[in-house]
Amino acid sequence: MERRQMLHIPGPTNIPERILRSLSQPLINHRGPEFEALLSTCAAGLKKVFRTENDILIFPSSGSGALESAIVNLFSPGDTILAVCLGVFSDRMAEIGEKHGLNVIRLTKEWGQAARVEEIEAILAQDQEGKIKAVCLPQNETTSAIGIDVEGISRMMQQMGHGAILVVDAISSLACVPLETDAWGVDVVISASQKGLMLPPGIGLVSVSERAWQRVEQSTMPRWYWDYKAVKDKMTTFQFPYTPATTLLFGLREALEMLNEEGMEKVWERHQLIGQGVRNAVEAMGLTLFSDKEHASDTVTAILMPERVKYKELAELLRTKYDIVIGGGLQKLQGQIFRIGHMGAIHFMDMYAVLGAVEMALVELGYEVELGTAAASLARTFIKK
Amino acid sequence: MERRQMLHIPGPTNIPERILRSLSQPLINHRGPEFEALLSTCAAGLKKVFRTENDILIFPSSGSGALESAIVNLFSPGDTILAVCLGVFSDRMAEIGEKHGLNVIRLTKEWGQAARVEEIEAILAQDQEGKIKAVCLPQNETTSAIGIDVEGISRMMQQMGHGAILVVDAISSLACVPLETDAWGVDVVISASQKGLMLPPGIGLVSVSERAWQRVEQSTMPRWYWDYKAVKDKMTTFQFPYTPATTLLFGLREALEMLNEEGMEKVWERHQLIGQGVRNAVEAMGLTLFSDKEHASDTVTAILMPERVKYKELAELLRTKYDIVIGGGLQKLQGQIFRIGHMGAIHFMDMYAVLGAVEMALVELGYEVELGTAAASLARTFIKK
Repeated sequence: MERRQMLHIPGPTNIPERILRSLSQPLINHRGPEFEALLSTCAAGLKKVFRTENDILIFPSSGSGALESAIVNLFSPGDTILAVCLGVFSDRMAEIGEKHGLNVIRLTKEWGQAARVEEIEAILAQDQEGKIKAVCLPQNETTSAIGIDVEGISRMMQQMGHGAILVVDAISSLACVPLETDAWGVDVVISASQKGLMLPPGIGLVSVSERAWQRVEQSTMPRWYWDYKAVKDKMTTFQFPYTPATTLLFGLREALEMLNEEGMEKVWERHQLIGQGVRNAVEAMGLTLFSDKEHASDTVTAILMPERVKYKELAELLRTKYDIVIGGGLQKLQGQIFRIGHMGAIHFMDMYAVLGAVEMALVELGYEVELGTAAASLARTFIKK
Repeated sequence: MERRQMLHIPGPTNIPERILRSLSQPLINHRGPEFEALLSTCAAGLKKVFRTENDILIFPSSGSGALESAIVNLFSPGDTILAVCLGVFSDRMAEIGEKHGLNVIRLTKEWGQAARVEEIEAILAQDQEGKIKAVCLPQNETTSAIGIDVEGISRMMQQMGHGAILVVDAISSLACVPLETDAWGVDVVISASQKGLMLPPGIGLVSVSERAWQRVEQSTMPRWYWDYKAVKDKMTTFQFPYTPATTLLFGLREALEMLNEEGMEKVWERHQLIGQGVRNAVEAMGLTLFSDKEHASDTVTAILMPERVKYKELAELLRTKYDIVIGGGLQKLQGQIFRIGHMGAIHFMDMYAVLGAVEMALVELGYEVELGTAAASLARTFIKK
């Protein structure tokens, strides 16, 4: 029997039926009154998810496009930024900065480790001349399944009084783990449609604080498509400088409604509970978590490949026999780990199928574990809640 | 009774049911075998539509994003280009070039007029030193509902032996009017999903010739998201450097299949016939075409507002009473003209409803025309075919 594939890579994620259906609505005029209503609903809903009164700009782009938008709007060639690099996607931010002529100081951690508040504090403390214009970091790095204490870093920066702005890549964390843009004082939050927002890829999002807008004013980087001021000006009249990805905005409206119905605190609790449940079950199965458990991501779990089991065989078996798609290790971690995504439209009972299939596949590939171990462990985590 | 709104702005266009349904498929892994099959089918289908063996790159972006991609990949700051400016969207290309430090020579025509081969030839002939690196022009400018003889210009440039490359904005013409990328020798063709391809907005497309790739090699413009080489490299392995707009690729596969079933020549004929039918009917109704008839666009028709009828009242009546959405004049043409889009998924019988409603609305607003005039004229055009 054909059944819907369960997509458990670290994003894009499974899309709820409600959202899938919303994507097949006939198109509307992007300069007409129906669009005005659509965008105004989306804009208001996004503020609740970002927890901010800051402007939130919407781009027809991937998340990486939104990263580039921040670089070309906030800085000028020759500016210095501090980039916290924990894996492929936070390295990307540094790389984009360098491509555009920035001087990038990298705080690179061994994959699987988080960057701590004190490490960033030490670098900023050494910057007597205030050369560092921004601290750029991922709230969650999917490569290494690790999270960062954004609140702690933001509060530290405020206490230090260092003039750097805080730019957070929340692509794989927004609408999954707690992020209080205004309460924590995060200047720029970058995200995208295809993770916690439960949508297909194709929309990039950026929230911009007053302080960040001052940087935009000073920036001399050439830009047209990514121009924050042009997008903001048009969005004020519920339009865009160019044709928006209207269909994805239909989906966004539906997704924001779903998140609002559940409530952001509940969404965060759900991800925290599932993250904890997965980590407990993985360990109960005798497997080893790749990442520092204290800073473990609640949206993706990275697991060391057990000896003698090959990643490709595991992934292939899961995909072909169980209709479940997981992720592998990137770059130097290829073949070393496997990653299970658990973000966005996910119910904790989904993990019974995912981890149950992983358990069976591992056994089929020669790994020894008592069948039912994963389910029993999940039950022990979930039953208390 | 609620019925589906007929969207007759100059794009985005009405989306066929087949394509709408294809958009609500569950997401797949963008690094898995299902995606490989999807992208390989799309890449092959696009070549048939672009009529080229050149590389065709796909971006998660609007069409304007694809325009910017051409600027930052083909040129270096200080380079000179000739931009043919016929309206808002061809002006945009010039503006993007200037934002990125190019020296832009504008050949600006009065709105409603086409640029002729000889005019471009004269400018290139004066360029003894070969400073002009490219001729950038729109095959179709929706602002002024005008088309350009791309074939003639391309052949002229080849005969002259001027080294400039030809960059064609085919956003509102691809899969509508004849475009023979290889046979005519067009170096770069830029397009997007939401016009002739009958899709929602969110995908930008660019075909790049061998000669254009040499320019990419020489270009020193900073870029990351738009980087042609990075996208080409990844597409060779049926992936992308960043998350693609997978859902729109589902739609693209369906759209390409539909175009293939009809055949490109038939698609072109259909648009030509509808364009002619609309222009005939508009004149039969005693209205005046805004644009030079000899170079009239076959994807959009611009019509002078009759005296005493206000555009806003006409558009509002059409939208609220007849569920038909038309476009107005942009910038200095606001209130002066109305525009009817007829591109993409359009059957010639659709124009009976559209022009029938326009006729009734005009009569309601005090314009004098015998009811049935539009339909009779359309019939006279169509019945012979």
